[in-house]
Amino acid sequence: MSKPIAIIAGVGPGTGAAIARKFAATYPVALLSRKPDTYEPIVAEINKSGGKAIGISTDVSDSKSVKAMVEKLKEEYGKDVTCAAAIFNASGAFVRSPFLELTEEIMDSSYAGSVKGSFNFSQATLPLLLAARESSPHPPSLIFTGATASVKGSARFAAFATMKFALRAMAQSLAREFGPQGVHVAHAVIDGVIDIPRTKEWDLGEGGKIDPSAIADAYWHLHTQPKTAFTWEIDIRPGVEKW
Amino acid sequence: MSKPIAIIAGVGPGTGAAIARKFAATYPVALLSRKPDTYEPIVAEINKSGGKAIGISTDVSDSKSVKAMVEKLKEEYGKDVTCAAAIFNASGAFVRSPFLELTEEIMDSSYAGSVKGSFNFSQATLPLLLAARESSPHPPSLIFTGATASVKGSARFAAFATMKFALRAMAQSLAREFGPQGVHVAHAVIDGVIDIPRTKEWDLGEGGKIDPSAIADAYWHLHTQPKTAFTWEIDIRPGVEKW
Amino acid sequence: MSKPIAIIAGVGPGTGAAIARKFAATYPVALLSRKPDTYEPIVAEINKSGGKAIGISTDVSDSKSVKAMVEKLKEEYGKDVTCAAAIFNASGAFVRSPFLELTEEIMDSSYAGSVKGSFNFSQATLPLLLAARESSPHPPSLIFTGATASVKGSARFAAFATMKFALRAMAQSLAREFGPQGVHVAHAVIDGVIDIPRTKEWDLGEGGKIDPSAIADAYWHLHTQPKTAFTWEIDIRPGVEKW
Amino acid sequence: MSKPIAIIAGVGPGTGAAIARKFAATYPVALLSRKPDTYEPIVAEINKSGGKAIGISTDVSDSKSVKAMVEKLKEEYGKDVTCAAAIFNASGAFVRSPFLELTEEIMDSSYAGSVKGSFNFSQATLPLLLAARESSPHPPSLIFTGATASVKGSARFAAFATMKFALRAMAQSLAREFGPQGVHVAHAVIDGVIDIPRTKEWDLGEGGKIDPSAIADAYWHLHTQPKTAFTWEIDIRPGVEKW
Repeated sequence: MSKPIAIIAGVGPGTGAAIARKFAATYPVALLSRKPDTYEPIVAEINKSGGKAIGISTDVSDSKSVKAMVEKLKEEYGKDVTCAAAIFNASGAFVRSPFLELTEEIMDSSYAGSVKGSFNFSQATLPLLLAARESSPHPPSLIFTGATASVKGSARFAAFATMKFALRAMAQSLAREFGPQGVHVAHAVIDGVIDIPRTKEWDLGEGGKIDPSAIADAYWHLHTQPKTAFTWEIDIRPGVEKW
Repeated sequence: MSKPIAIIAGVGPGTGAAIARKFAATYPVALLSRKPDTYEPIVAEINKSGGKAIGISTDVSDSKSVKAMVEKLKEEYGKDVTCAAAIFNASGAFVRSPFLELTEEIMDSSYAGSVKGSFNFSQATLPLLLAARESSPHPPSLIFTGATASVKGSARFAAFATMKFALRAMAQSLAREFGPQGVHVAHAVIDGVIDIPRTKEWDLGEGGKIDPSAIADAYWHLHTQPKTAFTWEIDIRPGVEKW
Repeated sequence: MSKPIAIIAGVGPGTGAAIARKFAATYPVALLSRKPDTYEPIVAEINKSGGKAIGISTDVSDSKSVKAMVEKLKEEYGKDVTCAAAIFNASGAFVRSPFLELTEEIMDSSYAGSVKGSFNFSQATLPLLLAARESSPHPPSLIFTGATASVKGSARFAAFATMKFALRAMAQSLAREFGPQGVHVAHAVIDGVIDIPRTKEWDLGEGGKIDPSAIADAYWHLHTQPKTAFTWEIDIRPGVEKW
Repeated sequence: MSKPIAIIAGVGPGTGAAIARKFAATYPVALLSRKPDTYEPIVAEINKSGGKAIGISTDVSDSKSVKAMVEKLKEEYGKDVTCAAAIFNASGAFVRSPFLELTEEIMDSSYAGSVKGSFNFSQATLPLLLAARESSPHPPSLIFTGATASVKGSARFAAFATMKFALRAMAQSLAREFGPQGVHVAHAVIDGVIDIPRTKEWDLGEGGKIDPSAIADAYWHLHTQPKTAFTWEIDIRPGVEKW
């Protein structure tokens, strides 16, 4: 039986990269994003520092692309490849807009990125997670990254919040279906701005941005929980955050 | 200024019909469903008993169909037609299925019926609701029908719950955006089986099914709330229900 | 069988008075507050305008005082007095304080007013509510007034929020226990400032304060729900409120 | 500056002992329970295995007893004793009872054990936690153990759920007040039966009871979160649990 891998969807230079680094300390990792230039730096970094990483260009909103990704995994790791951890860190675009200015295209795109994407990803990875129940050192885990908008529908957030609420529903439904089968499904409400290159200029005061490596540590902790003690949901925010 | 109307999407022989009857006591009502045979009986009933009702065949998931519906309203009630109450009682199909047996088509259809439908309906009716702020006897109201699955992602409910969670997010976001503008947006969690022809044979014991006219009364109460006292969410269930 | 009455605890010149007026249109009402000068004006007003009201000086946090109140009801309405609606609108004092400046006395007093009070009131009224199931025109109802602090533990609200959360738990537990027995237990989250004499000077802008008669209307609607369609919880806030 | 300690209230042969063991690997621990025979075995075990533990007989519901406990800490660790982690794992008695059979004494006792106890414990430990901000290797942490009844008021759980809801409110309020000051306050919803001596005979099937050491690991993870990434709440349940 081959060693199970970790699969991380949504690997930019922030949370996804931090999660990849963390899980790469234990598992070979497959990093998914639409374009190679997003995953290439972190793939190189992990391979250089003794881990094992591959990148696969994948559009999670496209089921064919997700199926092709699984085929690549099988080429790389063998037909019996299994998965110890699958992390859905992708998202439809963040949109903030007066409701009457939203377009169908924005809604469809938000659905495709967040809901369809997580659906395709979960359907592709759950069989590999179920197959890892014997070989994985920890219960195979499927973890979804949510946001404030997963639990609060703020004004002008109709496009973003609908799909984040939907993602949370999927995580909860999967937790209830697959928990009894030994797969740990969890959802994280990231309630704050993450400290990544894109937010570098944002001045949120001392300690006002979430350290992405702390998110990775939390996901790792979730992954290591034994099957008698699964957490379904955690929230993560800066101590100074108003909430 | 013409008298504002009520628009009800999703008018079958149950909740939608009961809501139509209730609002028809005060407003001319426009009843939307995909096929005429769904709305014809209740349209006839209302017109016979002294109310004023029209039916418009509308596929809420199709923005063109929704725009055509608005054009018909303008033909019927004048270019300056306004809306005192818009009720979104439609839904994507109810699906209960092991997650790995769900298909993309089911997800897309659930999205189209519940999220895209409510989006199209809200975009079409909000301008008419805003326009009724002066003439409506009560704050113009946009009310969404939810379900248990709006707040609980049960096992095997991934398709249905994702879209019901999403609908709830939309209702919450719209409530926060349009409440300050004088439009009352509300969401009802219908937590139980409704007593309609389709559920006639289901034996849930004495009092085990929700009377649809009680849902209509609750929606009417929501509609009559003054703008200093808006309810965003109510839950409705049989007294004997386990929850 | 004597006509059932309504009992309202916490009757000041605001919400309690508005509720009393509303329910007095249908039932004889018994109004409870610690001191006669709180209930006397509204008792006089109701009796003058054709209703029937009595006031009973009651400290709901004191079980003996609550038992004495029930005895007075029996003297007044007969040993077989029953109750169609019992409204718990009392509360421990509102306290906002840095946590480390709170005292045991404040905590104890908050517990006494909100939790012990609602406990005593519920234990005294539930037998009368159960006894009214046949005679009451609507399902006998026990309604609790909550606040923003019932669902959000804000900074510096430890004393107030603990007891409002607790009150909500009691309402929920009672709804689940007594709903199947035909008594409707409901909880209202009053999420905003109520427009009462005490808040007259507070400038919250146009429409920024909740009209107490709208709260009374909502409670009356809850009371009229049939037993197949009980609402457990509603929230009420000004349309302009940020939430 | 002396090394900060960990203080754990509610140390029986289950969760409390597991938490004590976990935190004793890094900090001297002070273990509180009403009677010495509860803490003595785990104190002995920790001291034997190279850790440092003391037990202090404390009734957390009695503020004098809690103050005396702090005095003992100062005798033992010096007047400038500080605290890296304070865990409130105590509780009022678990009571399940028809509401009308509950007594004032049960309510008072539930309040004393859960709310008053957590209040006294928090007031005593927060100054020590604030004082440890410089010296503690991780943000000083105050963690509360909750239960299913913290978020669900089931029928016949009025006494237990009111106080668990209240405890959760306190934890949330404290998190919002002290998070910005650098103290991490967290709440755990333990949603299942814990595998302890008292529940040994309960047959809940394979994997049906929560391993207390997994709860301890989760608390330790919470404690190690940096101040940019605080979790306020986690839920923990067996994978096979229905929820």
